[in-house]
Amino acid sequence: MTGAAVTTDRAAVLAAGYDPAKPEEAVAAVAARVSRWGRWGPDDVLGSLNLLTPAKRVEGAACVRTGTAFSLSQPFDETGPQNGWKKRTNPVHTMLGTGHEALDGEFPHGIGGADDVIAMPLQCSTQWDGLGHIFDHGKAWNGRDAAAVVRVEGDRLTGIETAAAHLAGRGVLLDVGRVIGGGELPDAYPITADELDEVARVQGVEVRPGDIVCVRTGQYARTRRDGWGGYAGGPAPGLSFTTLDWLHDTDIAAVATDTWGVEVRPNEFDVAFQPLHQVAIPHLGLFLGEMWDLDGLADACAADGHHDFFLTAAPLRITGAVGSPVNPIAVK
Amino acid sequence: MTGAAVTTDRAAVLAAGYDPAKPEEAVAAVAARVSRWGRWGPDDVLGSLNLLTPAKRVEGAACVRTGTAFSLSQPFDETGPQNGWKKRTNPVHTMLGTGHEALDGEFPHGIGGADDVIAMPLQCSTQWDGLGHIFDHGKAWNGRDAAAVVRVEGDRLTGIETAAAHLAGRGVLLDVGRVIGGGELPDAYPITADELDEVARVQGVEVRPGDIVCVRTGQYARTRRDGWGGYAGGPAPGLSFTTLDWLHDTDIAAVATDTWGVEVRPNEFDVAFQPLHQVAIPHLGLFLGEMWDLDGLADACAADGHHDFFLTAAPLRITGAVGSPVNPIAVK
Amino acid sequence: MTGAAVTTDRAAVLAAGYDPAKPEEAVAAVAARVSRWGRWGPDDVLGSLNLLTPAKRVEGAACVRTGTAFSLSQPFDETGPQNGWKKRTNPVHTMLGTGHEALDGEFPHGIGGADDVIAMPLQCSTQWDGLGHIFDHGKAWNGRDAAAVVRVEGDRLTGIETAAAHLAGRGVLLDVGRVIGGGELPDAYPITADELDEVARVQGVEVRPGDIVCVRTGQYARTRRDGWGGYAGGPAPGLSFTTLDWLHDTDIAAVATDTWGVEVRPNEFDVAFQPLHQVAIPHLGLFLGEMWDLDGLADACAADGHHDFFLTAAPLRITGAVGSPVNPIAVK
Amino acid sequence: MTGAAVTTDRAAVLAAGYDPAKPEEAVAAVAARVSRWGRWGPDDVLGSLNLLTPAKRVEGAACVRTGTAFSLSQPFDETGPQNGWKKRTNPVHTMLGTGHEALDGEFPHGIGGADDVIAMPLQCSTQWDGLGHIFDHGKAWNGRDAAAVVRVEGDRLTGIETAAAHLAGRGVLLDVGRVIGGGELPDAYPITADELDEVARVQGVEVRPGDIVCVRTGQYARTRRDGWGGYAGGPAPGLSFTTLDWLHDTDIAAVATDTWGVEVRPNEFDVAFQPLHQVAIPHLGLFLGEMWDLDGLADACAADGHHDFFLTAAPLRITGAVGSPVNPIAVK
Repeated sequence: MTGAAVTTDRAAVLAAGYDPAKPEEAVAAVAARVSRWGRWGPDDVLGSLNLLTPAKRVEGAACVRTGTAFSLSQPFDETGPQNGWKKRTNPVHTMLGTGHEALDGEFPHGIGGADDVIAMPLQCSTQWDGLGHIFDHGKAWNGRDAAAVVRVEGDRLTGIETAAAHLAGRGVLLDVGRVIGGGELPDAYPITADELDEVARVQGVEVRPGDIVCVRTGQYARTRRDGWGGYAGGPAPGLSFTTLDWLHDTDIAAVATDTWGVEVRPNEFDVAFQPLHQVAIPHLGLFLGEMWDLDGLADACAADGHHDFFLTAAPLRITGAVGSPVNPIAVK
Repeated sequence: MTGAAVTTDRAAVLAAGYDPAKPEEAVAAVAARVSRWGRWGPDDVLGSLNLLTPAKRVEGAACVRTGTAFSLSQPFDETGPQNGWKKRTNPVHTMLGTGHEALDGEFPHGIGGADDVIAMPLQCSTQWDGLGHIFDHGKAWNGRDAAAVVRVEGDRLTGIETAAAHLAGRGVLLDVGRVIGGGELPDAYPITADELDEVARVQGVEVRPGDIVCVRTGQYARTRRDGWGGYAGGPAPGLSFTTLDWLHDTDIAAVATDTWGVEVRPNEFDVAFQPLHQVAIPHLGLFLGEMWDLDGLADACAADGHHDFFLTAAPLRITGAVGSPVNPIAVK
Repeated sequence: MTGAAVTTDRAAVLAAGYDPAKPEEAVAAVAARVSRWGRWGPDDVLGSLNLLTPAKRVEGAACVRTGTAFSLSQPFDETGPQNGWKKRTNPVHTMLGTGHEALDGEFPHGIGGADDVIAMPLQCSTQWDGLGHIFDHGKAWNGRDAAAVVRVEGDRLTGIETAAAHLAGRGVLLDVGRVIGGGELPDAYPITADELDEVARVQGVEVRPGDIVCVRTGQYARTRRDGWGGYAGGPAPGLSFTTLDWLHDTDIAAVATDTWGVEVRPNEFDVAFQPLHQVAIPHLGLFLGEMWDLDGLADACAADGHHDFFLTAAPLRITGAVGSPVNPIAVK
Repeated sequence: MTGAAVTTDRAAVLAAGYDPAKPEEAVAAVAARVSRWGRWGPDDVLGSLNLLTPAKRVEGAACVRTGTAFSLSQPFDETGPQNGWKKRTNPVHTMLGTGHEALDGEFPHGIGGADDVIAMPLQCSTQWDGLGHIFDHGKAWNGRDAAAVVRVEGDRLTGIETAAAHLAGRGVLLDVGRVIGGGELPDAYPITADELDEVARVQGVEVRPGDIVCVRTGQYARTRRDGWGGYAGGPAPGLSFTTLDWLHDTDIAAVATDTWGVEVRPNEFDVAFQPLHQVAIPHLGLFLGEMWDLDGLADACAADGHHDFFLTAAPLRITGAVGSPVNPIAVK
């Protein structure tokens, strides 16, 4: 979790009237403005996925032009970026059979086979943060007591299984790295709401309610060239804290990036940990996608000029999980 | 792996001229007829997924009528059917944080959160069998030496990651349980090619090259009512060995069922282990989906009369895996 | 966790004045009598291990006569008794290399090798219950608030690592199965304090303060002959609830059995779950050993007439664990 | 696996007549001289543990003077030295219950409890290398074909379970760090046979056949002060390749160090990987202990002048494992 001596520009938070020395005040202020607690009733377990209606899937299907498909998943293997922080290791995949034993005669008549096993943190590679992943002052999504919801047996109410059928619809790529960064944004670059709008305008795509928005910073492309460096928890380009209003006002269903943690790192406060998460998950009920590989899709979008597509990003149906590995598939 | 004293009708294999006492001969005979080795060149790693072209995704997208989405995944948790055979346990999901510790002050300013971890066989619940999962007499897909392909470090050539972007397209449900079985087929019921065609005809749906075909037997619905019983490896309805020609001739991209192992159990030979697998995976290069939950989708298809849909069934991008857990999403 | 229709004789609890319908009263009554809270100061983390002094190891070493060693561990593998209850699976051991790849050239000059990995519940086979394993009405050992001690990160105070250097000393075998049961006690047989004393007398061995006492029921020998049956959580011979006074008065350091759960099952109350544990761990601070294999040692003791030995039963030094797998070594 | 620019003195290998450019020749030459293949018959699975006779345990027990016990285990937790090389992560220990849920009413009458789970490489912390861990040109211990012995299901012949009852006896500490290094040896320091003998002489202890010899370099003490650095696979003090004759001639049962890999790193050849292992395990059948914490024991030995003790270092009885975590207990 070490980072090089990069500093994050605080112009956006200052302009928005936040005091970088007082993140708790900032979180409270924006939460008061954007909170969706109760919007879908006291029993809601879907948060922003309520905005991803069946009509959005019809809209998404209409974006399929050539049928070309892109996996937006990074690999799941031991070469990943994890360094063990908070017991987050890279996946450990092992075999229960190999081709060497194919003719051992365990089974009759020449059939042989192999099974395999995996042990991994659900947050180790391309993933969704579920609604039980982050709390603000002990409160989880919809204002619930976090201690009553997320327990040692898992998230008893908003486990990722509640989202199992929902995450398919219209996807929109905002290639901020390309449009603003000339390919890649540098680490510690805070992306503002104006920039998100500007990228959409330049690309000629509209962000609409219920969309799954994919924000490409270019950092993952950089790590493929230069090595992981501090990818897992170090400095990164990402959403400014000030985009919380945009995330709220656009009524998008989810947002995903090609970085470890969606939001800019270091963040724009003196001392804070993932302050955008602190609002986005418990207050907005927003699904955050992390460590997505948007590079191949971005090249194709740049080539054909279409930045919307049908996107399916189905979490594994792990009962009670607060997140899930995912292999998102975009079909253009 | 114990089974009740059920017997499987062998009329289909007998009619096809196979000797139930000689599965090895039967495997060789059908493999000689249906083998696709070399069809897509010596370097192919996709097998039947070559048939799932971009055009199929355009065709699949055109099936989206209302945008209603269905998860075809069974739960991943400790209540699953696994009994430890071949080290196949149910998933073990554990938490690295809970709501109880949300206010511990590990992080500043009121943010709290939870991570989680999973250890599981890749074959424990809803899954794809990859091309490295089964061998015939030491040969893997495309005629390769299994010992050269699937090693202790995983499948070096046809690992599931090669399929990461492919499994989205037109899905077709054949609800054999409903049409033939009046709801559910009994265990040990061998589904024939004629029955598959008949179900398609009754349902008014056409099976076309490149489709992902979902065959519902009704067994999973039965286990939800009666308990798992021998679901993991015991008797089950499923495809007759004689459907291998149908699987070949239709040029479908993949087939999935609501049972543990796709094919009928006990199988139609005196002594054999998963003989349909022995041909379908190494010779046809066919992706097999197992333990899918097709019940909700089936009800909806029966209600609206449409049995095709857009289906995305993205395996996790686990490097070298011979299978993958999956949460298939069907959009009608 | 099913059990055959066996019933447990309640004569001992009735004679001791307990009401089988009121386990909570019984627990409170005996806890009031035997509680060691505060005995070793408010900061104690060792419980009964305080009784296993260096002098006990000198005493234990003096029991070494021939130097013959016995492993008291059951195997750790997929053939174990676990059935998934409370996510307790059998161990999943997998390889990261094999002899097949020995000459692959990964390393130069002909060296090859293999590593391996394990995923397992710490309670899956031969084990110690640590002091954080069981609570009584929210209280852990020494009267501490369980919620303050055992958290999602593990046992912060009495983790098994605190016991790492302690569990070596004088071991004593009480072969109740042989002396009272003629080889094996039947399931549901409650062993009383008088019987423990009688076995010691017959064997000619003295139980002294600080000893690690191994009580053999013979149930494990039976499972090796007849199969696991309900070994993991079903009926079993074991210590009567009424032995809690004996466990206290003898000042032994630890007690271990060849059964899943030390105490008799079903227990001697109408509705209760492991009531002896409920007192022994939080109130006595007693280390409980479970699923030990005492059969080979028992044969040797019967043959030479010596029932004491040097016993080392070192838990793995897993930070914060509430138990540990162990391979106890007895040296006669 | 990076290392600072340290160089290892090659005087010892040169003096012994080895060519640092030709490790394969050196391995062959010393193996021809020291090989024990066949010494204990063609079916032997114990290797050097044959030398640890019952008489050695009587001898070890006689070393117990005060009964003070020392755990020679490093911690098993996420703060360990592993960096993911060859999928070697630090242990991931998670809880299946906590004190927070102690009063949830899952169980009746106030009993509550916690279980836990671990996923770990068997080589992650304090460990034994078993006989199936290393091969020389495809040959395992006793001259067996490695591919026939160590397979995907584990070591079928010399799995660590065969050693379960053996590793208790007389331990001897050779505190080379203290005697030769003035506390700690620097990284890349090759310990010679003469130095081992000199340390024994200075300490006044005799190394005898069947002993378990613990060689303290001081590197672990340094990492506790300075951080792990390259502890897992980087430069380290350790046994010179030339000690293989000493390891053979002394007829010791096992050797353990406070370093990651027993032998000096970088090793004394131009290009080689763990050449001492390549001889010691397959040819000598020697058990190697790695990552032991010898510091507390060393202080006590220095203080009282006694460098022998009763040592029990029981591997877990994991069927087919090629190594095992261990908590060695030394009793002085």
